[in-house]
Amino acid sequence: MSEDVMIAGGGHSKFGKRSEVGLRELVYESVADLFNDSKLSMADVDATVIGVAGDQFNGQGAPAAVINSEIGALGKPTIRVESACATGTAAIITAQSMIKSGLRDSVLVIGVEKMTSVSSSMATELMARAGDLRWEYPFGVSFPGYYALMATAHMAEYGTTREQLSAVAVKNHHYGNMNELAHLRKEITLEEAMNAVQIASPMNLYDCSLISDGAAAILLTKESLAKKFTDTPIRIKGIGQGSDTMTMAARKSLTGLQGAADAARDAYKMAGITADQVDVAEVHDCFTIAEIMAIEDLGFFEKGKGGPAAIDGETTRDGWIPVNNSGGLKAKGHPIGATGVSQIVEVFKQLNDMAGIRQLPDVNIGMTQNLGGSGSTIVTHIFERGN
Amino acid sequence: MSEDVMIAGGGHSKFGKRSEVGLRELVYESVADLFNDSKLSMADVDATVIGVAGDQFNGQGAPAAVINSEIGALGKPTIRVESACATGTAAIITAQSMIKSGLRDSVLVIGVEKMTSVSSSMATELMARAGDLRWEYPFGVSFPGYYALMATAHMAEYGTTREQLSAVAVKNHHYGNMNELAHLRKEITLEEAMNAVQIASPMNLYDCSLISDGAAAILLTKESLAKKFTDTPIRIKGIGQGSDTMTMAARKSLTGLQGAADAARDAYKMAGITADQVDVAEVHDCFTIAEIMAIEDLGFFEKGKGGPAAIDGETTRDGWIPVNNSGGLKAKGHPIGATGVSQIVEVFKQLNDMAGIRQLPDVNIGMTQNLGGSGSTIVTHIFERGN
Repeated sequence: MSEDVMIAGGGHSKFGKRSEVGLRELVYESVADLFNDSKLSMADVDATVIGVAGDQFNGQGAPAAVINSEIGALGKPTIRVESACATGTAAIITAQSMIKSGLRDSVLVIGVEKMTSVSSSMATELMARAGDLRWEYPFGVSFPGYYALMATAHMAEYGTTREQLSAVAVKNHHYGNMNELAHLRKEITLEEAMNAVQIASPMNLYDCSLISDGAAAILLTKESLAKKFTDTPIRIKGIGQGSDTMTMAARKSLTGLQGAADAARDAYKMAGITADQVDVAEVHDCFTIAEIMAIEDLGFFEKGKGGPAAIDGETTRDGWIPVNNSGGLKAKGHPIGATGVSQIVEVFKQLNDMAGIRQLPDVNIGMTQNLGGSGSTIVTHIFERGN
Repeated sequence: MSEDVMIAGGGHSKFGKRSEVGLRELVYESVADLFNDSKLSMADVDATVIGVAGDQFNGQGAPAAVINSEIGALGKPTIRVESACATGTAAIITAQSMIKSGLRDSVLVIGVEKMTSVSSSMATELMARAGDLRWEYPFGVSFPGYYALMATAHMAEYGTTREQLSAVAVKNHHYGNMNELAHLRKEITLEEAMNAVQIASPMNLYDCSLISDGAAAILLTKESLAKKFTDTPIRIKGIGQGSDTMTMAARKSLTGLQGAADAARDAYKMAGITADQVDVAEVHDCFTIAEIMAIEDLGFFEKGKGGPAAIDGETTRDGWIPVNNSGGLKAKGHPIGATGVSQIVEVFKQLNDMAGIRQLPDVNIGMTQNLGGSGSTIVTHIFERGN
């Protein structure tokens, strides 16, 4: 058996509408943060894997090559990975496979997106092209529409309410306000969440995540090297990846994501744990309904019980399982390529007691769930304290 | 040590201006060809890795998810990889790492590009965005320009001639004419090659590869499974990947690609062979000067001797090393994401005596070299007969 793969450090830029910087500067912020906080330097990096979802947002084709030069990784191999909004964790799987296979010892993974160079409506349009371009996009469906269909189905089948959706938004805004790197630091009330302007019925403004700029970086390395870089590495304990049809009309059910359930099952199996052993989770709340489906598909709550769990506070710091204690995509922001890497940086901090005022007590096992598109690709990871 | 990774089958669409089909149909052609020629079926595939360079050519974002559904790989994990024109072989490295690491047993790699939906000038413009968007693109450099700079430097330093460049074109058109899947099946004379319309001095029309549509597919599997799928798998014996600055102005030399030399060195080292043991090579002749630099950077000929080798016939079927016996990017065509996978399909055929009228005698070791951008990323592979 080859060695386990460990995370030896994480870095994170400020997320937000970062009009003053471009793709390169966002990457630099995240990498500088990674190197400042650890005994790492670029000399320790054998290769880079770069997660960028859409060249169209900023116009730079082949972004991995330019980023690789920019961060001083010149001469080192680089590959770009893209899996829509699951780009960041797909990059992690790629890097992890390279290390576990023996091809590389240490790989720097960077996830980044610079989205606000285009208008919000253009960003929505570009993202809609990650839906089915032949059979759905031409008829006007964009992502709020896809998730509105899922919310409607979930409401019809399980009695999920608008109030329960809004409870997710209120919680994530609350935690986002505690996160200095978050895009939106603004508490909202349940009433505000419920009465905001409609986006795609039954979802309104506060049910939707943000269009953000940002970057996050992680160093993965093999276990025997990890202690050279940090006293507190974390271990990649489980990996799961699933998929579903890109065409929503071809799905058997809209009340959950088959690929998410598959990915969770595989990750638990590889990690040798069950859902009740997870201490903290960052899940893909691109829309509030996505968080409710995620906590069901991950097995934290029975199917149909995600809505009641949200309104009952079971996903808060004091509940059964703290979910999106970082603010989530909803408030921390959702720079597409960065999101999956950002989720893992948060779990790295939580498992190392480095999360400041957001720190949770007694966290040993953390989980991330990162969706691409309307759930056409899903990546789930389980991490554990390394020592 | 984990098992070696083998190639158990290859499939290939017709390359060309395929106005009658889209991205999905091109992929289908390559996958159907793969499955028709072997004992494989989709049930044998654990995951897919999809190489597509530019969403902009056809507009479909997150192409891996839609392709995965389309080919019946529904529910199986999929990841898209992009490394400009080295996309196909970057996908191969990713898949190979997944298998070698133990994450997957068998992975289907598909490389595809549908480029002719946009005009040639728009395609050139989109490709130029895989140059340095901040420091070079705004001043009007596109890829013929980048390689023209390299050709000029090579001529100045080594006395390389227009006639030597043209000899590469004549050879590759000759072999392309023998390849029923090639985009352009048309012999040209040295005189025609030398006197064609100028594109970017010192290069003319016949120094440039084609803008093509096409797809290629490969099944990678671990050694213990390979014989289940085919009697004649080939072994991945060596891998090398290098990089160089995206910004051409920052390079120390324009007469060769440092990343290509690095990638070759690492591939030979892993394979435990030297350049003189290679029996057949497919190299990245996006422009004729690129083939001349490739045969030098791969160590087939001394630096500066690539031009004379070309004119002396040393890279023909009867020469020292047969190079681009498929027609190369020059005549077979260059659908960006497909190119690297296509190169490996050709080597798979050659090593299995399946190359028809292009078959070379006594080939045991084959090599591929696939460049991204102006050499900002380079992937080199060495293969050997599996038994």
